[in-house]
Amino acid sequence: MPEVEIGMGRTARSAYDLADVTIVPSRRTRSSSDISTSWQIDAYRFDIPLLTQPTDAIVSPAVAKAVGSIGGLGVLDGEGLWARYPDPQRVIDDLLASGEAADDPDEMIAALQKVYAQPVSVDLLTEAIQTMRDGGGTVAIRLSPQNAAVLAGPAIAAGIELLIIQGTIVSAEHVQASGAALNLKSFIADLDVPVIVGGCSNYQTANHLMRTGAAGVIVGTGHGATTTTDNVLGIAVPMATAIADAAAARRSYLDETGGRYVHVVAAGGIDSSADIAKAIACGADAVMLGEPLTWAAEAPAAGWYWPTTAAHPVLPRGFAAPCGPADVPLRQLLMGPALGADGRTNLFGALRRAMAKAGYSRLKEFQKVGLTVRG
Amino acid sequence: MPEVEIGMGRTARSAYDLADVTIVPSRRTRSSSDISTSWQIDAYRFDIPLLTQPTDAIVSPAVAKAVGSIGGLGVLDGEGLWARYPDPQRVIDDLLASGEAADDPDEMIAALQKVYAQPVSVDLLTEAIQTMRDGGGTVAIRLSPQNAAVLAGPAIAAGIELLIIQGTIVSAEHVQASGAALNLKSFIADLDVPVIVGGCSNYQTANHLMRTGAAGVIVGTGHGATTTTDNVLGIAVPMATAIADAAAARRSYLDETGGRYVHVVAAGGIDSSADIAKAIACGADAVMLGEPLTWAAEAPAAGWYWPTTAAHPVLPRGFAAPCGPADVPLRQLLMGPALGADGRTNLFGALRRAMAKAGYSRLKEFQKVGLTVRG
Amino acid sequence: MPEVEIGMGRTARSAYDLADVTIVPSRRTRSSSDISTSWQIDAYRFDIPLLTQPTDAIVSPAVAKAVGSIGGLGVLDGEGLWARYPDPQRVIDDLLASGEAADDPDEMIAALQKVYAQPVSVDLLTEAIQTMRDGGGTVAIRLSPQNAAVLAGPAIAAGIELLIIQGTIVSAEHVQASGAALNLKSFIADLDVPVIVGGCSNYQTANHLMRTGAAGVIVGTGHGATTTTDNVLGIAVPMATAIADAAAARRSYLDETGGRYVHVVAAGGIDSSADIAKAIACGADAVMLGEPLTWAAEAPAAGWYWPTTAAHPVLPRGFAAPCGPADVPLRQLLMGPALGADGRTNLFGALRRAMAKAGYSRLKEFQKVGLTVRG
Amino acid sequence: MPEVEIGMGRTARSAYDLADVTIVPSRRTRSSSDISTSWQIDAYRFDIPLLTQPTDAIVSPAVAKAVGSIGGLGVLDGEGLWARYPDPQRVIDDLLASGEAADDPDEMIAALQKVYAQPVSVDLLTEAIQTMRDGGGTVAIRLSPQNAAVLAGPAIAAGIELLIIQGTIVSAEHVQASGAALNLKSFIADLDVPVIVGGCSNYQTANHLMRTGAAGVIVGTGHGATTTTDNVLGIAVPMATAIADAAAARRSYLDETGGRYVHVVAAGGIDSSADIAKAIACGADAVMLGEPLTWAAEAPAAGWYWPTTAAHPVLPRGFAAPCGPADVPLRQLLMGPALGADGRTNLFGALRRAMAKAGYSRLKEFQKVGLTVRG
Repeated sequence: MPEVEIGMGRTARSAYDLADVTIVPSRRTRSSSDISTSWQIDAYRFDIPLLTQPTDAIVSPAVAKAVGSIGGLGVLDGEGLWARYPDPQRVIDDLLASGEAADDPDEMIAALQKVYAQPVSVDLLTEAIQTMRDGGGTVAIRLSPQNAAVLAGPAIAAGIELLIIQGTIVSAEHVQASGAALNLKSFIADLDVPVIVGGCSNYQTANHLMRTGAAGVIVGTGHGATTTTDNVLGIAVPMATAIADAAAARRSYLDETGGRYVHVVAAGGIDSSADIAKAIACGADAVMLGEPLTWAAEAPAAGWYWPTTAAHPVLPRGFAAPCGPADVPLRQLLMGPALGADGRTNLFGALRRAMAKAGYSRLKEFQKVGLTVRG
Repeated sequence: MPEVEIGMGRTARSAYDLADVTIVPSRRTRSSSDISTSWQIDAYRFDIPLLTQPTDAIVSPAVAKAVGSIGGLGVLDGEGLWARYPDPQRVIDDLLASGEAADDPDEMIAALQKVYAQPVSVDLLTEAIQTMRDGGGTVAIRLSPQNAAVLAGPAIAAGIELLIIQGTIVSAEHVQASGAALNLKSFIADLDVPVIVGGCSNYQTANHLMRTGAAGVIVGTGHGATTTTDNVLGIAVPMATAIADAAAARRSYLDETGGRYVHVVAAGGIDSSADIAKAIACGADAVMLGEPLTWAAEAPAAGWYWPTTAAHPVLPRGFAAPCGPADVPLRQLLMGPALGADGRTNLFGALRRAMAKAGYSRLKEFQKVGLTVRG
Repeated sequence: MPEVEIGMGRTARSAYDLADVTIVPSRRTRSSSDISTSWQIDAYRFDIPLLTQPTDAIVSPAVAKAVGSIGGLGVLDGEGLWARYPDPQRVIDDLLASGEAADDPDEMIAALQKVYAQPVSVDLLTEAIQTMRDGGGTVAIRLSPQNAAVLAGPAIAAGIELLIIQGTIVSAEHVQASGAALNLKSFIADLDVPVIVGGCSNYQTANHLMRTGAAGVIVGTGHGATTTTDNVLGIAVPMATAIADAAAARRSYLDETGGRYVHVVAAGGIDSSADIAKAIACGADAVMLGEPLTWAAEAPAAGWYWPTTAAHPVLPRGFAAPCGPADVPLRQLLMGPALGADGRTNLFGALRRAMAKAGYSRLKEFQKVGLTVRG
Repeated sequence: MPEVEIGMGRTARSAYDLADVTIVPSRRTRSSSDISTSWQIDAYRFDIPLLTQPTDAIVSPAVAKAVGSIGGLGVLDGEGLWARYPDPQRVIDDLLASGEAADDPDEMIAALQKVYAQPVSVDLLTEAIQTMRDGGGTVAIRLSPQNAAVLAGPAIAAGIELLIIQGTIVSAEHVQASGAALNLKSFIADLDVPVIVGGCSNYQTANHLMRTGAAGVIVGTGHGATTTTDNVLGIAVPMATAIADAAAARRSYLDETGGRYVHVVAAGGIDSSADIAKAIACGADAVMLGEPLTWAAEAPAAGWYWPTTAAHPVLPRGFAAPCGPADVPLRQLLMGPALGADGRTNLFGALRRAMAKAGYSRLKEFQKVGLTVRG
């Protein structure tokens, strides 16, 4: 852990973003057709290392099913609009109309706050999950640490196969003076489905989250063009470093358990196919994509994006904005052929080719590819 | 102190701005409601670690009182317009009218120079201080080192409880060939109120200022979007480093005195709630805010800002410009709920949440939080 | 090889672009008229260390001849439009018309994909090579590794003197599960003409390519304003480092063979005469220029540029765009006098003067000139 | 000399620009009125450490006299328009008219090339020097190394007191195959006036130039917004490093001669009063200003600027452009009061205040002030 002394007696960790690194090919090259991008978590196998950010702007039950059929993992927000309204698409359409009409982005934030003030309904959540079950893919939703204890049971009863417990910043040791905080370890131990939990941003937190029994740990805060955690809280996660640290925690935990492999899912700062390749190259097993999926024609919010924190009632840390054209079929967006040459489409075809050109045929091997960093 | 050799035999200190650092959460998280942002200097306790920049553009006696009632320290410029004119708000309104009409920002500087050429009146200063006394908060004004000897007595007689002696760059050892310079040590020793003195920008100056008997030391030159000390003088203070160095001076002085704790107030380069959190994280006990308070509806200059140096008769080192919308009630600006997600409102609610997410419940502990620096 | 730890247990190479370095003159200066920029590869001698990027946008058989007559090496794309169409200039003109009319750069990519779907004709290739033969310069074409086995024979029969085997990223060890990959070593051994092969981006690959028997190795991916390999694949080559590493491979190979000198040709990131000088200064023997040649009046695409990868059917990694004015005679572009002072014209006159001002009279010596790098 | 390995076996010097450094005050402060900015070279004493760039755009004989009367050294270009035309101001006015009318900056370069093709007349040069003699200041002109042998005699006969021998990049050892290069050492030894020579950019060249017997050495290439040496030749001089290296050469030479102090004049990259302070802080004894003097009402080219290299017939390395408003009286520009707060006026009043705030009263002491560099 290289530390620099930023002032007398005060050190800081030298940290790097994905934009700071580039991939260096090895002495070999391979044919793209020989490359596999598959991975497996618990009993579930995926052709591409993709999880969707569980945000209503990009994931409906229909999108989640479509992602599953293409080979990724679609994650619905279990506390999102599909769990709060009988006609969520109409709520989104109204939001977009008010967003288009707004003079000030703050008006859209106010509209989001109002819409997400509606309580979650277990019946609606159950219905949404049941819709997802007939798609052939793995069924997964996201719950917040605050509500997981209440909602996980009904969700499992409704048929989810994987549970994502996700907040912007999550630890295995949440301290609160009044009321009981979720004990992740006992909670996960009692569940019938594997859990992926996060986000976290350092070795120690990643290690402690692995010790809760989670099957996967999310590294990163899901930051992107519409999130402002860095401007509001000063907390930011240079992703190349955060991913590498989480991968180190994975190795330590593997050793400490004599063989339990916890998957590292990188969430945040991944804008293009190049970033996907770099995230894997830094040590991630899979990536969780948000804004890049606003390119999909199937996205519920027609190219707009907002993170769940945009609706926070007293301290929003994100906003809503048009991000992608929403005119590329999801399958083409993920698997090609590419439209244009900007790394925004054929996201996983590009990963496959990056691996081929760099000489690696499996994701796990590609985690060792050479990197440069701006000197 | 990491030094780099910039040329043969010439070294420079490696230094960092707040923008270069990010906060890294610890292995714990906490509930925001368990967090305290209070601090105490001498006999005075504050709910939030805020001092206002003593600039007429943002602080009137009424604003100072309002800041005090919310839990911060409002500091009036003891040599500002409230001490020079019987109707200072009208002077400001005229300034703004000329600023709006000006083709060239230099015209507004000329207007400021003219307005601040009016002499300070002890009677008007006394009146302003008396107005501040019935607000319930701590009463404080700022005087320059040049005029402190003359004006401190009347100000204390009028009822101030804390004195800020502040210039852009202040030392404990001002040398001048003719006339007597203020001897800070004997001056402070003779005063009946605690003194906060600055700005300074390095360990040694901070240490010497602490030895004058000051209760607090200001680190930084108060720089922001409307100051040009860096372009005019070449003197600039990378704040993360300057704060950390002043905190090191605080530790040394604490040791050398066997327990006297001098507070470090960071002034300059703090534009958002994230910067407030970072300044504390680097070692500050409190922050002094200028331009961020132009968001306040109560600001006398309706969103314009100018530093006191903008009115210097031969070498202005700042200018006047519209900075904030001046449409957010001061209490909401400081304590929330936030408007938008840009770190400009709910400034101290955001600090509380940053501390909670990083796992710390007291300001003093938060000074140890992990940091990253761009690699 | 300075490595930094970007995260726990994960290192990256510190790497530099040409823009990061500057040339420092030595204690001598020389007269420009005493400087030679000549170099020789195998039996072929050149007055200027220039190869053209084998891209239809800038190289026709006529341009290749003109480059040869000025003292450089014009390289025609052996799989380009001159090998696919009887009237390639008209195909280009139609492309440009559609490019001018397009609302979206993706439309031009689609047009390129369509045009390059036409198969290569050995007859047309032969004809193009024969046209190049009567120019007095060295005759060279580029073939891809995929097609070199089929097309090299006819090309040599048609009269090429040098063969460029070039892909974006090439290795000496291409692995593929089905079908036989080109074995560069035996292929080159069997050829009657010297081969320049690339691009590569690190020491080991450069070394292995040298061991294939190539006369020259291309370092870099030919990146420029219209290529997006970095955004699509995450693979990028900071050129100052890549060139220096390839030069190190050249020294090792020279030692290992007891005297075989393989030339290093830098391709990519070279936009101005300054960049040409820097590439040589970092260790290159010659440069391969693409977009800078769109200034030439003779360029077939009238100032537009596209890399060959822009036409890839499923994952284009470049696009077409107007780059240069196409109004400077090629000889003036290369040899002066300059038009303007922007380093875009008199490209090799400027190299000569840079060498003179820095005190070196031969390219080989200039590879040792002092450099700075941003501190 | 900290070196970094940019590639295997290839190192580069870590170098810094003035923009990379900031000045850190010491533990003292002083009154501006106690500060002296005077310096002396040979028998000539100056109140301010200023030489003008010898460029027709800013220096006429009248301007040179005015600079002298204010306390600086005005340097006329001995090979400029005043030595080529009987009515140089009219030539400049015509140039500006064509510049205003031009569609393309290259047209103005062509106009400059044409104007400067007119031969130098010894009579006109003599006349210009004689005009400068009755101003009270020190009389100085600049000659190029190419023409110094021919023109120095007449210039001394006409009454110059200091000779500047200046090219963009000059060494003590100019090698040329045909004809005799100027031997600076014997040339300077034979002259009756002290010589300042440059520019140079590293320790060794500075040291060798000092050994020629020069009274001063110019460090830097005079680069600014209208020069393109970096884009054309790849040669650039990060000034903080170059100045510090030249100051080290000054110390070595002082030791090697047992006391001969050769002055270091920084030329290039100095845009504001802050940069003047930083250049002195890095080790310069004086600065040579070009574009900043286009603010002067007296500037012959009414705010336009061009370096002499802009008129080079085959490889111009600069252009002409409007840079300053040309509406501030020269005395006010140099000595204040400032107009505005941007570091563009009151250039040496600002230097005085920077020294005062940093705690130094003499230029020589200020060369030791603390610096930071971006971490």
